[in-house]
Amino acid sequence: MLVGREMKRIYFFDEGITDRKLLGGKGAGLAEMTLLGLPVPPGFTITTEVCEEFYAKGEKLPEGLMDEVKEAMGRLEKITGKKFGDDKNPLLVSVRSGAAISMPGMMDTVLNLGLNDKVAKGLIEATKDERFVYDTYRRFVQLYGKIVLGVNDELFSKTFEEVKRDKGVKYDHELDAETLKEVVKKFKQIVLEQKGKPFPEEPYEQLKGAIEAVFRSWNGRRCVDYRRQFNITPDIANGTAVNVVTMVYGNMGNDSSTGVLFTRDPATGDRELYGEYLVNAQGEDVVAGIRTPKPISELKKDAPELYREIERISRKLEEHFKEPQDLEFTVERGKLYILQTRNAKMNASALVKTSVDMCKEGLIDKYRALMRIKPDDLDQLLHPRVDPNTKVNPIAQGIAASPGAAKGKVVFDADKATELGKKGEDLILVREETKPEDIHGFFASKGILTVRGGKTSHAAVVARGMGKPCITGCSALEIDYERRIFKVEDKIVREGEVITIDGTTGSVYLGSVPTIEPELKGELYELLTWADEIRRLGVRANADTPEASEFARKMGAEGIGLCRTERMFNEPDRLPLVVNMIMADNEKERREALEKLLPLQRQDFIKILKTMEGYPVTIRLLDPPLHEFLPRYEELLNEVMELEISGNTKELEEKKRILNRVKVLTEINPMLGHRGVRVGITYPEIYEMQIRAICEASAELLKQGVEVKPQVMVPQVGMANELKKIREIFEKVKREVEEVYHFKLPIKFGTMIEVVRACLTAKEIAKVTDFFSFGTNDLTQATFSFSREDAENKFLPLYLNMGILKHNPFNTLDEEGVGRLMDIAVKEGKLANKELEIGICGEHGGDPSSIELCDKIGLDYVSASPYRIPIARLAAAQSVIKKEKVKALAPSGF
Amino acid sequence: MLVGREMKRIYFFDEGITDRKLLGGKGAGLAEMTLLGLPVPPGFTITTEVCEEFYAKGEKLPEGLMDEVKEAMGRLEKITGKKFGDDKNPLLVSVRSGAAISMPGMMDTVLNLGLNDKVAKGLIEATKDERFVYDTYRRFVQLYGKIVLGVNDELFSKTFEEVKRDKGVKYDHELDAETLKEVVKKFKQIVLEQKGKPFPEEPYEQLKGAIEAVFRSWNGRRCVDYRRQFNITPDIANGTAVNVVTMVYGNMGNDSSTGVLFTRDPATGDRELYGEYLVNAQGEDVVAGIRTPKPISELKKDAPELYREIERISRKLEEHFKEPQDLEFTVERGKLYILQTRNAKMNASALVKTSVDMCKEGLIDKYRALMRIKPDDLDQLLHPRVDPNTKVNPIAQGIAASPGAAKGKVVFDADKATELGKKGEDLILVREETKPEDIHGFFASKGILTVRGGKTSHAAVVARGMGKPCITGCSALEIDYERRIFKVEDKIVREGEVITIDGTTGSVYLGSVPTIEPELKGELYELLTWADEIRRLGVRANADTPEASEFARKMGAEGIGLCRTERMFNEPDRLPLVVNMIMADNEKERREALEKLLPLQRQDFIKILKTMEGYPVTIRLLDPPLHEFLPRYEELLNEVMELEISGNTKELEEKKRILNRVKVLTEINPMLGHRGVRVGITYPEIYEMQIRAICEASAELLKQGVEVKPQVMVPQVGMANELKKIREIFEKVKREVEEVYHFKLPIKFGTMIEVVRACLTAKEIAKVTDFFSFGTNDLTQATFSFSREDAENKFLPLYLNMGILKHNPFNTLDEEGVGRLMDIAVKEGKLANKELEIGICGEHGGDPSSIELCDKIGLDYVSASPYRIPIARLAAAQSVIKKEKVKALAPSGF
Repeated sequence: MLVGREMKRIYFFDEGITDRKLLGGKGAGLAEMTLLGLPVPPGFTITTEVCEEFYAKGEKLPEGLMDEVKEAMGRLEKITGKKFGDDKNPLLVSVRSGAAISMPGMMDTVLNLGLNDKVAKGLIEATKDERFVYDTYRRFVQLYGKIVLGVNDELFSKTFEEVKRDKGVKYDHELDAETLKEVVKKFKQIVLEQKGKPFPEEPYEQLKGAIEAVFRSWNGRRCVDYRRQFNITPDIANGTAVNVVTMVYGNMGNDSSTGVLFTRDPATGDRELYGEYLVNAQGEDVVAGIRTPKPISELKKDAPELYREIERISRKLEEHFKEPQDLEFTVERGKLYILQTRNAKMNASALVKTSVDMCKEGLIDKYRALMRIKPDDLDQLLHPRVDPNTKVNPIAQGIAASPGAAKGKVVFDADKATELGKKGEDLILVREETKPEDIHGFFASKGILTVRGGKTSHAAVVARGMGKPCITGCSALEIDYERRIFKVEDKIVREGEVITIDGTTGSVYLGSVPTIEPELKGELYELLTWADEIRRLGVRANADTPEASEFARKMGAEGIGLCRTERMFNEPDRLPLVVNMIMADNEKERREALEKLLPLQRQDFIKILKTMEGYPVTIRLLDPPLHEFLPRYEELLNEVMELEISGNTKELEEKKRILNRVKVLTEINPMLGHRGVRVGITYPEIYEMQIRAICEASAELLKQGVEVKPQVMVPQVGMANELKKIREIFEKVKREVEEVYHFKLPIKFGTMIEVVRACLTAKEIAKVTDFFSFGTNDLTQATFSFSREDAENKFLPLYLNMGILKHNPFNTLDEEGVGRLMDIAVKEGKLANKELEIGICGEHGGDPSSIELCDKIGLDYVSASPYRIPIARLAAAQSVIKKEKVKALAPSGF
Repeated sequence: MLVGREMKRIYFFDEGITDRKLLGGKGAGLAEMTLLGLPVPPGFTITTEVCEEFYAKGEKLPEGLMDEVKEAMGRLEKITGKKFGDDKNPLLVSVRSGAAISMPGMMDTVLNLGLNDKVAKGLIEATKDERFVYDTYRRFVQLYGKIVLGVNDELFSKTFEEVKRDKGVKYDHELDAETLKEVVKKFKQIVLEQKGKPFPEEPYEQLKGAIEAVFRSWNGRRCVDYRRQFNITPDIANGTAVNVVTMVYGNMGNDSSTGVLFTRDPATGDRELYGEYLVNAQGEDVVAGIRTPKPISELKKDAPELYREIERISRKLEEHFKEPQDLEFTVERGKLYILQTRNAKMNASALVKTSVDMCKEGLIDKYRALMRIKPDDLDQLLHPRVDPNTKVNPIAQGIAASPGAAKGKVVFDADKATELGKKGEDLILVREETKPEDIHGFFASKGILTVRGGKTSHAAVVARGMGKPCITGCSALEIDYERRIFKVEDKIVREGEVITIDGTTGSVYLGSVPTIEPELKGELYELLTWADEIRRLGVRANADTPEASEFARKMGAEGIGLCRTERMFNEPDRLPLVVNMIMADNEKERREALEKLLPLQRQDFIKILKTMEGYPVTIRLLDPPLHEFLPRYEELLNEVMELEISGNTKELEEKKRILNRVKVLTEINPMLGHRGVRVGITYPEIYEMQIRAICEASAELLKQGVEVKPQVMVPQVGMANELKKIREIFEKVKREVEEVYHFKLPIKFGTMIEVVRACLTAKEIAKVTDFFSFGTNDLTQATFSFSREDAENKFLPLYLNMGILKHNPFNTLDEEGVGRLMDIAVKEGKLANKELEIGICGEHGGDPSSIELCDKIGLDYVSASPYRIPIARLAAAQSVIKKEKVKALAPSGF
């Protein structure tokens, strides 16, 4: 509440004041339209400050307010030539809520206010339509009774249904004037019985009650919950305004109509009016669904002049608000009124198209064009998805682990998938959970569905990396591998039956459900080019294969920020070699096994480096613990038991040997175990082989004249001394390869920053490295002491519900904790090494608000899944705009 | 090498220069003794700077050095009245090494230098002892041949043995003068054959060779390795000095003798000379072990005057060096010479006693008394241990998980242990690993031995908490539970056989091996009182039981810094209730189970709070994940399978239910999972019960007039919002109890700081808490991304060996990483809350250098295992002394 300035409580729409905070969104919009000379029914707004006063005084209207309202009504009477409570030409008004922030449906509105028996008669005289009047009357009594007087609405409805039954009619509009008049009486009787007082006949008493009711609705439970949920704090909106607007009627004959429209198509963004209207009807009738409204395009033929006027108004509104509008209109006996306007809600592709179009039309600049779109909304455009209009219900719901829709035949193991995949079948791999040795099944399938796991389970991470839809943690499924079926409640799905999964929503459907294919429209391309002009952050992709790399380039990636080599270890032709390497009893045997892997890895790197010619490619050395490449303990135990029974001693010995190794390698907390650089230190020959493969691949391509920019990245580093040891290997191998090829190799050497201690000792680490790349998934796990899968399965949902955490820190970077560590690492790292390049390659690299944080902290680039590259480009641009163009972006519009 | 000052190369012992760095330890000691007027054989020192010059010139003596040496020898001749190379009264010298830092046995020494055939004759004339002279001569040729000329020593030994065989004698001393003369000839022949040059007869040539050889030995391999191992860098010692000392002989008749002695008993610290001597003998004879030396006490009777002189010299040396000394003496024809003195090495109890005694004698002040003892050495005094003199060899070696020795009959399960324990048997519980349900077995046993696990496995942590010896990770053991045996290599040990374990060393012995019981001597008590006067840090104990608390008070604890409530959950009478609570299907059932636990917990707290009357008791709410209280998955699976066969359906259903719950609760990384405050948030009724038990226990005691200071501590907090939720419960329950008892409860509310994010957001957390207590074990795990058990089993040993890490960060706080986080938390926490009390309750709280870091960072107290309380008290005092009294502690002595 403002103190010390003139407290003006009431503003007419034509007073030239359009302050949203003071007048609320609706009031300001009506005032703004009035100012633009648009046909708005006359009326006035009681300010939000009055609402504050109302609460400050213990839910009482401020003294003198009703006198001011009466004065305002007097002015309204003069403008309209009608009279409030008159028995000849009565003025009726609507009393509408409207806060600074739109809270659709949360607060109350009373229509047709000012009616009583006397006024009704006057209205009949004025409209010559008795039925219309009593229909309006009974609606008013019911609405007022419910909202202002607090009568249980069911009592009205029940009575009304009884009347209809008595009269033998089915639809409301079949009731005649006389009956409706009866209904009015019955409704008033209900009010009398319920409240012990008669329905207020005096129009100003009605008006006072309605104003109070609207103010009260601001603190209604729904409304308070809504504000809490959307974090609408008192500094944003601290009360509702009350709008008193002259009633106009679209149901006063065939020269009357009512409609709603978008100034541009909200689905396609096309620049043409989109909406519908009904002749001789009220807004409510559209909702009731009794008559079918016509598309607005027909108005072009039916009433070309009216159409042109609406079109003219639409353009004027867009020019004014710089946004496509969503508006309501009513034509009363040939005269057009605009009752409301607000920014149109659109889907992502319409947002993109209108942004580009409006910019080209000169309505908005590029900054505004870019800022209009929430980067995450682009995700809709980048994956196929189940048609949202489908009527089919999902049979189960899991965790949306990798976006996109896929359909295919159910298959329960990777080998079968490979076999069927070769025949060209579309498949969905369904497993309890997946393991590295299932990787060939991923390649053969269109999508993956697992019973266990979260967003970082093996299935989720691999599927995301491949850009394949995936649902994990779908615990309603009971798989019976032996019978080759899964059950969901009472349904049984057999191997070979078709299902559809939508990894964007986590829904599983029986059969083939229609899906929508993604389209990369011209306007999206153009918009992202603008983003590229503005952003400071580089955008790279996380990609492990040449195919993913190529797709990433198409999506606009300026390099590979994370190429995981372990994926290559898991391919069917390598896994046996990897297992041999792990099972080796000594360094010599291990080196022999690695010798065989070397040419395969070199070939992998040649392909990817070639695909990314001219761009940096960051290759991460082996990260996971070695036991991840071996079969699971339980499986092995079963196999050993079976072999013991069958008596195949030779195979038994081998399996027992593997079983023992698995036992030795198994860890209590694998996330914090023997992995990453720790494996590189204990078995240096593994990293040596990988570094050699990278050096040789680079040398081969350079010899062919291909420009390569490889970057060797060491995972899990926590202390500079670890990195020194690996750097020694790197320098040695590089020198050896350079001596063979007789030229220098332009290979950078760097490290993941994913261990807390690495952030804290970045100064030392920066001295032995060319680049940092934040691995914020592991860093978040360590900073919170949360194991992601355990947390997301067990307590994180509750933490978010209770508001202990505002965001899932695995989706959005935690600024106070993880962000602070990153900030330390960036500042101290760059201070120690001026040339240090710093990026991020965790999943956060594709999250818009995390990208903003990365920009703020001063990273050089983000690296994201190829599918999120466009999102990252836009978010990076928005970050710059928010920081630097903040003044150019003063809010306007609704 | 110093440049720009006068380069004096040679100092006589009597020149008044005692610079250790310049003269080396031995030279400085001789000079210092000379200065004190003690009888030291005359001699001089060639400085360590000459050694540097020697290496700078490519292993050549600096020009003119030998001229200076000759001049010095001339002076020596004057002093002694003997002549170098003389045939009448020849001067013989020893040439001895000696660096600034004592490196015992690492560098070379040549004795009896200056002998040749002519000189030998002169010496016979002077000594009238031909046999002595040739014996000395042959020793000289052998030593010089080996050290200076580099002849293989075996050639000398073989020849000497042949001579003895030829002569038919067994011992060296049975050879006569003539034969020894022959030996000299044979030895010279060996030199001639091996080196192609005759043995140098010219004394100055001998001397030059010996000086060079001593300098060369500084870079000998042994010596270089030693310096690397003990981190002796050039700034500490950069070369050896050479001491040329007049030979004196203790074997010149019955008025001659030789001996070594400590000025105080190095085993007890008693203030009396301790050592042994031999009449008419040389130092070598003591080593050879042919004659049995006499204890020094006999000298008191045999030569009371000599004894008094030695005693007088000893006191003078102690007064001068402020340390008990370890010295060598020789009496030549009645004249006493002190050949060497250095600080005596003593065991812990002698160190303690001498510290206190010397302080009382006025030799040293309290600061010096406290600084003389390495806190960790006190550990020897605080546990029983296997007698180090035992001849029995261990049969296996594991991880020293909890110090102390124990012996008893092997028992393989906790139930059996309880059964036998009741009969009063001494038992050692031997398991693959232990689980919470084995807890009653711990109570019943004297010690614990496990095949798997590290220093923080269940067995280790529980045993340490109980102060029982424990060895973990003893992988050489193969347990066969069915046959009730374990195997080690070819040995089989049956249940009921006696073994001895030493948890201080990790050794396992067959049978009952003698052990030494700990003694808390009066001087230790006194010394620790002095520590208490000086230290700033408070010292509390980690203790979970009234017994442990009482013991902790005896050890000097000023409160309980960590009382773990989960131990109470594991006791046999509670575990079934806890399991019921976990198995409950809903909050109501859970509350019912908790209702039954409440009185038991209350009773626990009453006992501990009463024991610690007047002192703070910090009680940590439940920390481990709930699945730790349920049986293991594999065990359950076996039981279910067995029940399926036997057809006991009722029990089968129950087991299956538990199995399912275990499956649901099992986590991928339990260390980062659903535990601590996360359990407190998801099942608030558990913490509510514990808080109620604490409040009611406190109220009961206060009513009885017992002063209690409970502190409720929440584990695993990572964000202030978590703590706010728990604080709400705390305030509510406290208020409820206060209303019942009609008085206020003086209970503090605080949190563990063991999550990285808690350190980074300490400012926010400090606002909702009365105290912080660092849990540096978990904090270290998260900072390094090391799972302690996985790391200690798999790669940490290699990291320490390779020098990637200097210390195991789980033993000694990592200053750069963990220490930095602690520093942030302390600074920002205290800034946000001036009253905030900060301690540490991890194992680091008992580690001296970690305690020093805690003092530096500004913690208020450390909390350690009761057995380490004395260590913590001493370390805390030393930290203050190091910081504040650094000038008072300028180094002196050796």
